[in-house]
Amino acid sequence: MKFTVAILVNNQFGVLNRVTSMFRRRQFNITSLTVSETESEEFSRITVQSEGDEVKQQQLVNQLYKLPDIVSVAELSSEETVNRELLLIKMHNDPESRDHVRSAIDAFEGKIVDYTKESLTIQMVGDSRKIDNFITLMKEFGIMEICRTGIVSLQRGASTIRKVTNF
Amino acid sequence: MKFTVAILVNNQFGVLNRVTSMFRRRQFNITSLTVSETESEEFSRITVQSEGDEVKQQQLVNQLYKLPDIVSVAELSSEETVNRELLLIKMHNDPESRDHVRSAIDAFEGKIVDYTKESLTIQMVGDSRKIDNFITLMKEFGIMEICRTGIVSLQRGASTIRKVTNF
Repeated sequence: MKFTVAILVNNQFGVLNRVTSMFRRRQFNITSLTVSETESEEFSRITVQSEGDEVKQQQLVNQLYKLPDIVSVAELSSEETVNRELLLIKMHNDPESRDHVRSAIDAFEGKIVDYTKESLTIQMVGDSRKIDNFITLMKEFGIMEICRTGIVSLQRGASTIRKVTNF
Repeated sequence: MKFTVAILVNNQFGVLNRVTSMFRRRQFNITSLTVSETESEEFSRITVQSEGDEVKQQQLVNQLYKLPDIVSVAELSSEETVNRELLLIKMHNDPESRDHVRSAIDAFEGKIVDYTKESLTIQMVGDSRKIDNFITLMKEFGIMEICRTGIVSLQRGASTIRKVTNF
């Protein structure tokens, strides 16, 4: 089962390494991971999308809490959080398919950020499903290259992730 | 000095861990990292923004190449690549500052993705400098929470990162 956790950590050397080691040791495959700055210089946030057994998942969270420099671990469900991913995708700029591609870009509210005679690069933001759907649609028009960020999430409403430490 | 590298890796268990270990062992601090799917199921791409000595940087790249399952390592310079980051930022929804915040959102081409009486959550895409500038601007209006993805990059024009393995 796929799941997403947001791990708030102290900005200490080696903490990312300890977190990824824990996933590896517990045999969880990481499908996407972002580590980034937060509103405080003291903390970084690691957002991990992973898949694995639900029972083992609880054990994983307990183990994560035992690591040094872990401030909080929160599961992110799509109902309570805003989940967004960023996609950059480079397409062949083929006159025959260009109209299809451009009309899909409009429908998905994407943006062309680089354009040459041979290629066009599109930027798009959405939840993982929207990004997946767009990529599927583009497949028949000649994808040259894809790069996506993995998920970042914020709790809906006024509460913040840091307060939600019960998994 | 800050630098960004795109590391294409085989989709094998433990490869992320080996990469972050290498940065840690060489005393490079990772400021942002994304790992994500690519156009091929065989490969993942790890984009790392880091800082450290320029001479040691070359050694780091050489060492990365020696790791199992590393396909290519490319330095990303902002002239030749499209660099984008995604920011989610939650602000206090204060009637007194709301106009300032909304007009900044318009100017930076951001988008409000969650709105309650107490808070508003903004989504924004740009290069790191634009994101930094927006956050600086928001500071006086009451930031509640920030989450940003770290950089993803694609080579401008028709060439792809995979071919650019000379650092």
